[in-house]
Amino acid sequence: MRSTKLSIITIVLVQVACLNAFTQKFENLALTPPMGWNSWNKFGCNINENIIRYTADAMVSNGMKEAGYSYILIDDCWQAGRDSLGFIVADPEKFPSGIKALADYVHSKGLKFGIYSCAGRKTCGNRPGSRGHEFQDAMSYANWGVDYLKYDWCNTEGQNASESYSLMRDALFEAGRPIVFSICEWGLSKPWEWATEIGHLWRTTGDIQNNWDIPDAKEGKCWAGGVLINLDMQQGLEKYAGPGHWNDPDMLEVGNGGLTENEARSHFSLWCMLAAPLIAGNDLTQMDPVSKDILINKDMIAIDQDKLGKQGYKIKDYGEIEVYYKPLNNSDMAICFFNRLDYPIQVEFDWTSMSLSATRDSKPLLLGLKIDRKDNYIEGQYSIWNVWQKKSVGTTSQKFIASLQGHDVIVLRLTSVTKK
Amino acid sequence: MRSTKLSIITIVLVQVACLNAFTQKFENLALTPPMGWNSWNKFGCNINENIIRYTADAMVSNGMKEAGYSYILIDDCWQAGRDSLGFIVADPEKFPSGIKALADYVHSKGLKFGIYSCAGRKTCGNRPGSRGHEFQDAMSYANWGVDYLKYDWCNTEGQNASESYSLMRDALFEAGRPIVFSICEWGLSKPWEWATEIGHLWRTTGDIQNNWDIPDAKEGKCWAGGVLINLDMQQGLEKYAGPGHWNDPDMLEVGNGGLTENEARSHFSLWCMLAAPLIAGNDLTQMDPVSKDILINKDMIAIDQDKLGKQGYKIKDYGEIEVYYKPLNNSDMAICFFNRLDYPIQVEFDWTSMSLSATRDSKPLLLGLKIDRKDNYIEGQYSIWNVWQKKSVGTTSQKFIASLQGHDVIVLRLTSVTKK
Repeated sequence: MRSTKLSIITIVLVQVACLNAFTQKFENLALTPPMGWNSWNKFGCNINENIIRYTADAMVSNGMKEAGYSYILIDDCWQAGRDSLGFIVADPEKFPSGIKALADYVHSKGLKFGIYSCAGRKTCGNRPGSRGHEFQDAMSYANWGVDYLKYDWCNTEGQNASESYSLMRDALFEAGRPIVFSICEWGLSKPWEWATEIGHLWRTTGDIQNNWDIPDAKEGKCWAGGVLINLDMQQGLEKYAGPGHWNDPDMLEVGNGGLTENEARSHFSLWCMLAAPLIAGNDLTQMDPVSKDILINKDMIAIDQDKLGKQGYKIKDYGEIEVYYKPLNNSDMAICFFNRLDYPIQVEFDWTSMSLSATRDSKPLLLGLKIDRKDNYIEGQYSIWNVWQKKSVGTTSQKFIASLQGHDVIVLRLTSVTKK
Repeated sequence: MRSTKLSIITIVLVQVACLNAFTQKFENLALTPPMGWNSWNKFGCNINENIIRYTADAMVSNGMKEAGYSYILIDDCWQAGRDSLGFIVADPEKFPSGIKALADYVHSKGLKFGIYSCAGRKTCGNRPGSRGHEFQDAMSYANWGVDYLKYDWCNTEGQNASESYSLMRDALFEAGRPIVFSICEWGLSKPWEWATEIGHLWRTTGDIQNNWDIPDAKEGKCWAGGVLINLDMQQGLEKYAGPGHWNDPDMLEVGNGGLTENEARSHFSLWCMLAAPLIAGNDLTQMDPVSKDILINKDMIAIDQDKLGKQGYKIKDYGEIEVYYKPLNNSDMAICFFNRLDYPIQVEFDWTSMSLSATRDSKPLLLGLKIDRKDNYIEGQYSIWNVWQKKSVGTTSQKFIASLQGHDVIVLRLTSVTKK
């Protein structure tokens, strides 16, 4: 009797352990927002293994690796079909060396390697999707040395998003190699409400376009928007982000020619304020110095990568002029002034009342306060570091006064001078 | 320009062809309701390859094969796990020769071979389910020579039934071997409304139990019911059935000891009236003569297998006494009188008015007419064949008068004597 009872208890324990193992994501991955490069924004379907190799080379030589970028990610169109056993096969013309060799090459550069698939029957680019092949595909990725999977949402008619992404999460876990799982469901079913235990990041928007603003998208007439639309869709999502699980307003368009220098700086800065994944999407082998300086600004990146892992948010909105706030580790904080107007203004910020006034050509701008979150951020005195000017600019004992270009930002890092 | 245009047209055509091929079931299978044997009702999880072999032997020697039974179906618990590539592996202790050898054996007897899986992560018996492995599993079945798949619905939290069954349908089609696809979703999401293009039969009920009636189930207190409950759940579903797509009120319990002879005959007769799949679930190697005579009644089976493929239905319901009707090929028809009372009665049926009266011990029974479908079935004169008495019993020019045991049926086949 006793031994029977013990056996039953053992069986139950084993089952519980198995069930737990069967339904979890890899922990301790993406404790800060992932940083890297992805092929889609620049190359779309026109990719091949040389582009990936040269990009890895460039990431090392241009300072991006040193600045913290680590993932080289192939997006859609690397697949050609499936073999006789149903395993996914890379396009032999575009990737003649195979995916494993490519992953090995990327790893040899001290970088990590990522790949793409889709929860549906076909990918967005009409390549084989993972539906019905989830465990096989996860096994292939693990065998090849993949470190990151972007998992898209095309051709998923009738599928439940949470169930579909849970399935691939579990397939990855069963395959045994820690892989960052990037959920790309475009925010359709509010993944921030269900994806914390499923993925390490989840898209909150349609695909970003290489534009500052797309008014048609704002009116809901098209699915994909520009920088401003993707930014504005993050409002209110800050409470869902944290170490290991991030909102993803989509990859960067810095360096792709659709943004002015000011706009590119704003795009990058605001993504950092949002603790967004920083996935460059430009041609790293032919990067202009301005784009490079934006992408490797270490103080800006430090705000994104702050280990407290808080997503910043808008605390003041005066219409076209906004103030973003991001709490940082060790009681530091980041403040970002953002000017949506297409002309320069002068801003004056009073740290005591946390209020902003602005002038244009010395004439006061009438600022209607649309959002005013009074979280009483400032206690005591802080020194101020201007992230883009790369210099100290006084303390919070005085008003902050600066000129702010059209479509541009000022980002300040505040450090307490009263604390020990 | 011209050649480019032609290329584009060619590509579009190829894609359309591929899409069609990707989303269809095998046609011209199960043009009449499938007939066979399944391991579950008698053996549950306690199966092995010898049971299957001996059952195939018995089906040939006991006259069932000659009577039309053709499928030998393994239900749950044949699986042990998956191999290093993710392919499903049979339990090596219970099926040491492997599934292919077993299928070959069954085929060598002139029979067909079927197997079981589940749309969820685990089967109902806690074996590996097909979720995320659909294409691999379909490939294995095709390689082994499987002819029939019963696909269950346990452990499917978050899954959409239509999508899940479509996925396996497409996986089977891609694997290329014609396989009857038996949808076992228990009727939860009204599969009769969506499964016509997906499977060849679909369960409309919970699992049948080896009982005549389970009052708790009737009141919704338990999921699985007896013969009466599964019968009554077919009301109104007749319009969804037809050649290649059948309602399935679950397998037969004839010969499993839970039914009296009258009840077993009623169960079988009513399933035949319903054009239900006739899947025996008893131990064919130890069958009593009464059960065998029921299962191989060729006139009864002919009503089930009638090529017109119409599901019969209740045309008269007098409370505990009912009349079922099934139109047959060549203007024949089947009429079934069913007595739910647990005592014998005398029935008298007037073919002109299509009305029934009944007496018990020569005293009239008060029959309240609850259902009266007036489809005006009888035109002209018909000869009458009594299916269980196996003899001619006059024509419809006279009233039909007969005694009807408790829990029993009288089944009549009518053939027009006025037609050429």
